[in-house]
Amino acid sequence: MKKKLAAEFFGTFWLVLGGCGSAVLAAAFPLHGIGFAGVALAFGLTVLTMAFAVGGISGGHFNPAVTLGCAAAGRFPWSDVLPYWGAQVAGGFSGAVVLYIIASGTPGFAPGQFAANGYGDLSPGHYGLLSALVCETVMTAFFIMVILGATSVSAPAGFAPIAIGLCLTIIHLVSIPVTNTSVNPARSTAVAFFAEAGAAGQLWLFWVAPLLGAAIGAVLWNALLEPGVNRRTEPLIPAVAL
Amino acid sequence: MKKKLAAEFFGTFWLVLGGCGSAVLAAAFPLHGIGFAGVALAFGLTVLTMAFAVGGISGGHFNPAVTLGCAAAGRFPWSDVLPYWGAQVAGGFSGAVVLYIIASGTPGFAPGQFAANGYGDLSPGHYGLLSALVCETVMTAFFIMVILGATSVSAPAGFAPIAIGLCLTIIHLVSIPVTNTSVNPARSTAVAFFAEAGAAGQLWLFWVAPLLGAAIGAVLWNALLEPGVNRRTEPLIPAVAL
Amino acid sequence: MKKKLAAEFFGTFWLVLGGCGSAVLAAAFPLHGIGFAGVALAFGLTVLTMAFAVGGISGGHFNPAVTLGCAAAGRFPWSDVLPYWGAQVAGGFSGAVVLYIIASGTPGFAPGQFAANGYGDLSPGHYGLLSALVCETVMTAFFIMVILGATSVSAPAGFAPIAIGLCLTIIHLVSIPVTNTSVNPARSTAVAFFAEAGAAGQLWLFWVAPLLGAAIGAVLWNALLEPGVNRRTEPLIPAVAL
Amino acid sequence: MKKKLAAEFFGTFWLVLGGCGSAVLAAAFPLHGIGFAGVALAFGLTVLTMAFAVGGISGGHFNPAVTLGCAAAGRFPWSDVLPYWGAQVAGGFSGAVVLYIIASGTPGFAPGQFAANGYGDLSPGHYGLLSALVCETVMTAFFIMVILGATSVSAPAGFAPIAIGLCLTIIHLVSIPVTNTSVNPARSTAVAFFAEAGAAGQLWLFWVAPLLGAAIGAVLWNALLEPGVNRRTEPLIPAVAL
Repeated sequence: MKKKLAAEFFGTFWLVLGGCGSAVLAAAFPLHGIGFAGVALAFGLTVLTMAFAVGGISGGHFNPAVTLGCAAAGRFPWSDVLPYWGAQVAGGFSGAVVLYIIASGTPGFAPGQFAANGYGDLSPGHYGLLSALVCETVMTAFFIMVILGATSVSAPAGFAPIAIGLCLTIIHLVSIPVTNTSVNPARSTAVAFFAEAGAAGQLWLFWVAPLLGAAIGAVLWNALLEPGVNRRTEPLIPAVAL
Repeated sequence: MKKKLAAEFFGTFWLVLGGCGSAVLAAAFPLHGIGFAGVALAFGLTVLTMAFAVGGISGGHFNPAVTLGCAAAGRFPWSDVLPYWGAQVAGGFSGAVVLYIIASGTPGFAPGQFAANGYGDLSPGHYGLLSALVCETVMTAFFIMVILGATSVSAPAGFAPIAIGLCLTIIHLVSIPVTNTSVNPARSTAVAFFAEAGAAGQLWLFWVAPLLGAAIGAVLWNALLEPGVNRRTEPLIPAVAL
Repeated sequence: MKKKLAAEFFGTFWLVLGGCGSAVLAAAFPLHGIGFAGVALAFGLTVLTMAFAVGGISGGHFNPAVTLGCAAAGRFPWSDVLPYWGAQVAGGFSGAVVLYIIASGTPGFAPGQFAANGYGDLSPGHYGLLSALVCETVMTAFFIMVILGATSVSAPAGFAPIAIGLCLTIIHLVSIPVTNTSVNPARSTAVAFFAEAGAAGQLWLFWVAPLLGAAIGAVLWNALLEPGVNRRTEPLIPAVAL
Repeated sequence: MKKKLAAEFFGTFWLVLGGCGSAVLAAAFPLHGIGFAGVALAFGLTVLTMAFAVGGISGGHFNPAVTLGCAAAGRFPWSDVLPYWGAQVAGGFSGAVVLYIIASGTPGFAPGQFAANGYGDLSPGHYGLLSALVCETVMTAFFIMVILGATSVSAPAGFAPIAIGLCLTIIHLVSIPVTNTSVNPARSTAVAFFAEAGAAGQLWLFWVAPLLGAAIGAVLWNALLEPGVNRRTEPLIPAVAL
């Protein structure tokens, strides 16, 4: 279990440092910045790389919503959910601290929104609460369905980290303008307290919507895509077990 | 069969929500928008991810033209074509509804072309009917050839979703300026009735050309690339069966 | 052999239609164009997709320099080089014809350089003959080394199309400013006669340099990376045989 | 051993020619340049492609920090570290020479920073020494963890070059603004002496930080992710051995 929590800690650390880091440091760099597409790629690749690296140890969740969804689908023991959440939040926060140290070393630095998630005035495109709620919920539901499908016995072995990582890239390509894209409460929590204004007050949504979406995705998958299948009870191990 | 139709429903839902969603929400975002290249990536990755997730269930078509092409190539039963088409159109439309709900939550929202396909005045680059017809037909023909090849017994197992998804990315990298890229009647139908002006009246082309191209691709493949091969009659299952 | 030539024909058709097509139609589209990076991705993915689709049939060369390099490395029969070259040039030219038909359907169309290769005044960044010669030769040499390596027995099976396609993407990310990137005489020939000015007169370079580079790459590989290895004489089949 | 050193020589040659080449030639090209995102992709893909091509020969390090990290983790013999470093520095420098020859063939050429790494005034975003030190160290530590994880027995076989190459892409997506991204002393050394001002005087940091980070990554991995595992002593062979 210690190994698994270390894997989730470092994986979520990398997700925040790489994903939020690309947003904070490089997205808006004058002339040659990477824009939303570069950020979408960075987020997805953090999951792809770490799922290959430690997926065989912990299952490679790096996200409380994914852990909940796997438990709801009967693929992960409920008793391990809270320890995983703890490791994910701690890892994400550590990544944000390192990012803050790096980012603050330039003249005239201001944290700004520090890649925090938000709706209304804190949404990049000023999308309201309903849009944010629907977007985060539906996106997370599909994320879970791709995860459950790509790690099922009817999917080719070894490819799950590619499918899962690049699914996170799509989600960002679509929804950065809406909420700056969370689908991951640990990622939202990690940076909310570094942001200049208001993000912490909206953090509840980025726990509620991803967790709700994950549960919906798990239920839909089990009911419609794998009806009547015996659920496994071992931890989900996308990269390896299947 | 219910499982297969659910797989096609959710796959096409994801294709429209992810692909058209990236176009509607993020392509033209000021300064940091993802542009046509980001949209091309999003469309391709929706197919890549869902083909890994549910390709083992339904074959992962998500596109009436692909279903027709597989049937014409002798790899899919003709009797299942219409149910698949129904699931694809329903899934795509559901994706467009969710996208509309999200997109409409920003001040001053107007649907505009809502990622609809078109020619002439409705083509992003004002390409005429002949260009649109040739482009959609030829692109779909190559799409089918890549699908049939990547899932044939002489291709390495497991990689088909990568080849097929990234083929859709190329198609968009080339042809968004011409027709906003369809090669998929379900995707075109899903958004046509949300668009502000005229897209529904041009929808016929985005059924005719992709279906024609798919048939041509299937015939060319069987005649020239696999001459004399016994056709299989089971559903195409790109990610797994081969 | 007929099947193999059909595979090379359609593969090179797709390379020109997808690669040069993205350059002609989408690279410079106002505001949302895909730029050089999008073109680099499109060229690479045409090879990735077609190598998965028909690599098991013909080896997936789609490029006279690759065919020469494989022959020089002892992996392809010299007697088949000229038929392959014929299929590649014919396929590339057919792709350029279709591209011309599509591209000419917009008001005010002018072919411009039509994605042709060039040096001096015809180089996008006005690079001279020496730069062009060195660039094309060295790039093709590395391309052949990646091809020979990724399809060798010490590389993991099935991944060669990914390595080879994305190698072509790197080559374009580096060298579009220098020569508009060839490393492929069939691709250069296909579009040279559609270009408005002078490309046909410089076409010789885009046969000489890629072929020279391919020979150098093959010799370096055999001498330094696989010394003392018995050469196989069957056609190279990147996606499958290994 | 000669084969291995040739593999490291050509791999690092390609990393510098492809990665630094994309930065020098294409990143800032007017209107259609590839920007930081294109450079990030190019660097990552040089490693992906060469790791597939020669990973089975030398392990595919192409980076003195990777070689040190593998040795520190007990996966590579200490006696081979210095020869590998020599081949890597020589290969990188050769790539920079070829790049200089190509780049200098345009009217009005000036080497500028020639893709060199730096901090303070030589940082693209004027990040100071502390930011640079933390960034390079932490990034290299995660790079090594991904390498050790993706080539461990609990990761799926054959995919390591994808995970490792795309990890280098993330690192660049985040940190080009900070140091122009090194994490590789051979890459930094290769171009430092071509740069116009000051890069050579800062080169020490791009040896110290990556080597330090690699050692930290190796220690963390062995202590926390693979505690109690018997270390292998053969060279790391990401693409093949596992």
